[in-house]
Amino acid sequence: MVNHQISAILHLVNMSFYNQLKFDEATGLIPAIIKEQNTGRVLMMAWMNRASLAQTLATGKTQFWSRSKKRFWMKGESSGHIQTVKDVAFDCDGDTILIQVDQIGAACHEGYKSCFFRSVDSGSGDAKIIEPQLVSPEQVYGKK
Amino acid sequence: MVNHQISAILHLVNMSFYNQLKFDEATGLIPAIIKEQNTGRVLMMAWMNRASLAQTLATGKTQFWSRSKKRFWMKGESSGHIQTVKDVAFDCDGDTILIQVDQIGAACHEGYKSCFFRSVDSGSGDAKIIEPQLVSPEQVYGKK
Repeated sequence: MVNHQISAILHLVNMSFYNQLKFDEATGLIPAIIKEQNTGRVLMMAWMNRASLAQTLATGKTQFWSRSKKRFWMKGESSGHIQTVKDVAFDCDGDTILIQVDQIGAACHEGYKSCFFRSVDSGSGDAKIIEPQLVSPEQVYGKK
Repeated sequence: MVNHQISAILHLVNMSFYNQLKFDEATGLIPAIIKEQNTGRVLMMAWMNRASLAQTLATGKTQFWSRSKKRFWMKGESSGHIQTVKDVAFDCDGDTILIQVDQIGAACHEGYKSCFFRSVDSGSGDAKIIEPQLVSPEQVYGKK
């Protein structure tokens, strides 16, 4: 862990709300729901550990812990589609965080504003895409 | 598992979106974010297994799996504060569900509309309550 992360964590643990949070005992993670403040849309859900929450609060930009890649990631680090924190709330059990943000561009790595771009048709049970794709993933992340 | 649950699961696995969902390999669970459709508020986050998702779709009322009590629970089973399903969406990775509902009464067992009734004051780091308590828990669940 680098110095700026240690400093951010020390700041976090001195905040009184920190004692009301429950990070998962086994993984050290807590789920964070990200909502776009000006539209009310739920954009995504991702995971934070103490260091990524601390960095999110210190920088005002959302940062997460990737369970698959086992590393920190800042939303928008590749795409430029960063999220600026406007509000941080937490639930009654202290085991989920809700962060309201201003979203630049598309939250979803598939190029949609929200990762929840598919809804279930209650009649057929099929998934249907409910919003336009803002950018193509190739535009954002380059050809694969 | 009882017959109506088996029947509901068979219906679920025949829906095409089911193959796009990823339940956690170890626990069999998937997180479900619950949002109030008419206000856009995020009300709560809880966990579903295949049977509770199937029952949610079959009955149109949200049902979850309690990790602490290790049993199914229907939202509102004690309080009457049920949630009627209006829309079911899922994210790009297929590992989180977003359900829009009509909420009767308070979603939170502490008597608030939303479980996210506390927000972090960015200056002090203290938690502040951001909405009125609609009912007292004693009114809903009886004296403890």
